[in-house]
Amino acid sequence: MFGARCLLRAVRSCSSAPCPRHRPAARVSVRGALGVQSANGERVKVQGWIRSIRSQKEVLFLHVNDGSSLESLQVVADSSFDSRELAFGSSVEVQGQLVKSPSKKQNVELKAEKIEVVGNCDAKAFPVKYKERHPLEYLRQYPHLRCRTNVLGSVLRVRSEATAAIHSFFKDSGFVHIHTPVITSNDCEGAGELFQVEPSSKITVPEENFFNIPVFLTVSGQLHLEVMSGAFTQVFTFGPTFRAENSQSRRHLAEFYMVEAEISFLESLQDLMQVMESLFKTTAMTVLSNCPKDVELCHKFIAPGQKDRLEHMLKNNFLVISYTEAVEILKQASQNFTFTPEWGADLHTEHEKYLVKHCGDIPVFVINYPLALKPFYMRDNEDGPQHTVAAVDLLVPGVGELFGGSLREERYHFLEQRLARLGLTEAYQWYLDLRRFGSVPHGGFGMGFERYLQCILGIDNIKDVIPFPRFTHSCLL
Amino acid sequence: MFGARCLLRAVRSCSSAPCPRHRPAARVSVRGALGVQSANGERVKVQGWIRSIRSQKEVLFLHVNDGSSLESLQVVADSSFDSRELAFGSSVEVQGQLVKSPSKKQNVELKAEKIEVVGNCDAKAFPVKYKERHPLEYLRQYPHLRCRTNVLGSVLRVRSEATAAIHSFFKDSGFVHIHTPVITSNDCEGAGELFQVEPSSKITVPEENFFNIPVFLTVSGQLHLEVMSGAFTQVFTFGPTFRAENSQSRRHLAEFYMVEAEISFLESLQDLMQVMESLFKTTAMTVLSNCPKDVELCHKFIAPGQKDRLEHMLKNNFLVISYTEAVEILKQASQNFTFTPEWGADLHTEHEKYLVKHCGDIPVFVINYPLALKPFYMRDNEDGPQHTVAAVDLLVPGVGELFGGSLREERYHFLEQRLARLGLTEAYQWYLDLRRFGSVPHGGFGMGFERYLQCILGIDNIKDVIPFPRFTHSCLL
Repeated sequence: MFGARCLLRAVRSCSSAPCPRHRPAARVSVRGALGVQSANGERVKVQGWIRSIRSQKEVLFLHVNDGSSLESLQVVADSSFDSRELAFGSSVEVQGQLVKSPSKKQNVELKAEKIEVVGNCDAKAFPVKYKERHPLEYLRQYPHLRCRTNVLGSVLRVRSEATAAIHSFFKDSGFVHIHTPVITSNDCEGAGELFQVEPSSKITVPEENFFNIPVFLTVSGQLHLEVMSGAFTQVFTFGPTFRAENSQSRRHLAEFYMVEAEISFLESLQDLMQVMESLFKTTAMTVLSNCPKDVELCHKFIAPGQKDRLEHMLKNNFLVISYTEAVEILKQASQNFTFTPEWGADLHTEHEKYLVKHCGDIPVFVINYPLALKPFYMRDNEDGPQHTVAAVDLLVPGVGELFGGSLREERYHFLEQRLARLGLTEAYQWYLDLRRFGSVPHGGFGMGFERYLQCILGIDNIKDVIPFPRFTHSCLL
Repeated sequence: MFGARCLLRAVRSCSSAPCPRHRPAARVSVRGALGVQSANGERVKVQGWIRSIRSQKEVLFLHVNDGSSLESLQVVADSSFDSRELAFGSSVEVQGQLVKSPSKKQNVELKAEKIEVVGNCDAKAFPVKYKERHPLEYLRQYPHLRCRTNVLGSVLRVRSEATAAIHSFFKDSGFVHIHTPVITSNDCEGAGELFQVEPSSKITVPEENFFNIPVFLTVSGQLHLEVMSGAFTQVFTFGPTFRAENSQSRRHLAEFYMVEAEISFLESLQDLMQVMESLFKTTAMTVLSNCPKDVELCHKFIAPGQKDRLEHMLKNNFLVISYTEAVEILKQASQNFTFTPEWGADLHTEHEKYLVKHCGDIPVFVINYPLALKPFYMRDNEDGPQHTVAAVDLLVPGVGELFGGSLREERYHFLEQRLARLGLTEAYQWYLDLRRFGSVPHGGFGMGFERYLQCILGIDNIKDVIPFPRFTHSCLL
């Protein structure tokens, strides 16, 4: 059997044979062409979109991009090829010879023998203008076209690489991947605002609710993962989560992606934090090594200085402070906060920022939060008089809270009492069951994937690191 | 820097040191222990759940499973370890020496030095009973516990492996992964029944709709992928999709997963079908090679004969017939159908079944369907008088329709006319835009992931191949 790569190559070279009389040129991607070490006149076919065009007296230079890399392939053609249709944004198919380029800007260029315009581009109407660097806010108006710019192209390639790296990280560590449900009848945290789901009016189901009970879009896969960690020990999920928050902030979306993991037989926050730090660093290193040019583009043009900031994060061990220590640090700060820091109160964005700065712009774990601030499932530290639970948040420069996690309350009677106090015993009987039948100490965390990308690339607004952002008043396409 | 695998090992051995006086035993997974080639008394610690217990005069045998594999590790202990708490379903931590097993059933066993019961199991209340093979329907009542059975454990490990294999297939072939949105303001096919999304009553957003317009749960990521194929050439998505269909069938869910791909510069159904067949076969081969025991369990106890059926599918080239040929075959069938086969009418399940049987139980592509049956975006074949579009469905034994795909209409004027006829021009202006600015011939497909698992494993009901099934009248947890 063919491997996937093999087969696709075969598919391509087969589809590229409109004229059986000539031996067809092998179809290569731009990335593939640019990767040829010592080009020697190989006959190839490249397909893509024109990113730039320059006509000199006798020579025509085109740059063709197919999204396989940030870089375009330079096509050099006789000026007789010049035509009105060869314009920015047009799609083309070019056949010719791959040769060593005399220019220092690239190793390889394509000496064109045949150029075919596949689809014209109405330049006047095209919202992406030739040689213009459009602000990201402007591009957000065109979710169907913005991916054709360098910046969005790079960001989304990085997103794809990071996705693959995260899957590999967990697979290599023996985690089982679980698709936790999107539609759910329980509200994990009682925290986030929920979206409700109902069949649209087109349908008539006899019952009032399609599912007999009210259902919502998930705010976290944690509880479902806990179910699975009771069978597979180490599990993870990577899927969409939702908040109906009326927020236009640069850190919030109504639909965003979370990476969540749950680990059985895990007994300390220390162990959990090691997995979190390793996930952060391993993924970043993989992205840096697999798409350096895409990362460089962001670091150069979008977030100058981000390269150094990222290196600083990667080469240092993340710090750990307790919530109590954090509050002390904030109290002693010379800065005036809008929200006065006080034991028992939530940390606000201004506090998170201060703490990260205070820690020398190294990511910092804040652990052991007040019990009263956190959901019922977090493990009671049984301390006092300042009563805490074994929770952990990771704060990072520029973004603030990136991860949240905790040990879970695995002791039946502790959990039963907490649920009883909240009047949730009946609703969470199934969750109590997990503690009745072979309960184990366990813990887990969630990482906001878009915030992670913001943190790595230095992209200021979360709407620019997701293909189709959804937020209050906006759901384009 | 540590690799992920390394670090997790370190994490584990660090967390397993409650008593600093003794050198801690290295924590290993059951899979890891069973994989030791020549056990030689290595001191290890294993954590998991008791799957069976057998007490002989002087020896106690336990089987401990941690979900890392179908197989459990045999623990051999002195009968002095016996206790009431050592029971089916309890969680335990066992320290001891890995030794060669005298039995032929396993290579390795663990000679226990220390056994600690971590969490008891209330056997009377536990719905999973010792040594009983529960029907899958029975287990569906317990979505929080059924993953602890052999069958669901195997199915979900296969699901995890298949997920990874699909990601690898596309990555190795140069596809960019795209997270297409779950919440969307357009209805891809106009076909499936939709779920509508609104903030739950808890929230008050001034406007009538949170997003200003009505929004729905996606029925397909295709149109969003088409956007992205105009930038990256080859793209795929693998995420949840939704249908509010009032169906209790063994092939339908309200929430299910689709693998979708879109390929630019693709000019023939032949090329598309090659990618589809390759995805099917490559994924199956990877699963068979990475979790043979899990697959074997299903083939042996759930679907006898499925092993041969699968091999038959994998070693043969898939067949191709046109819709017109399919109708002819059906018309000539001796079988009486509930729905009389006729050119222009949809193929029903009974027809699909017959066609697959007729083709010798080899998966069969049916191509070129009547234009009137298919959505607006499929490419017009400009034939006649029986007017067709370049659509393709893949029918497979046992499941019926597994893939659906088509060439897309890339010609502006063709698409414009189709949309105008449907009164959709305004709503799909953005989609027309893709044909105004560097349009290219392209095509794509979607594969129902749960149906794929059903087809590979021979699982009859789709509710048993997804962790938390959602269907009419049921949304547990």
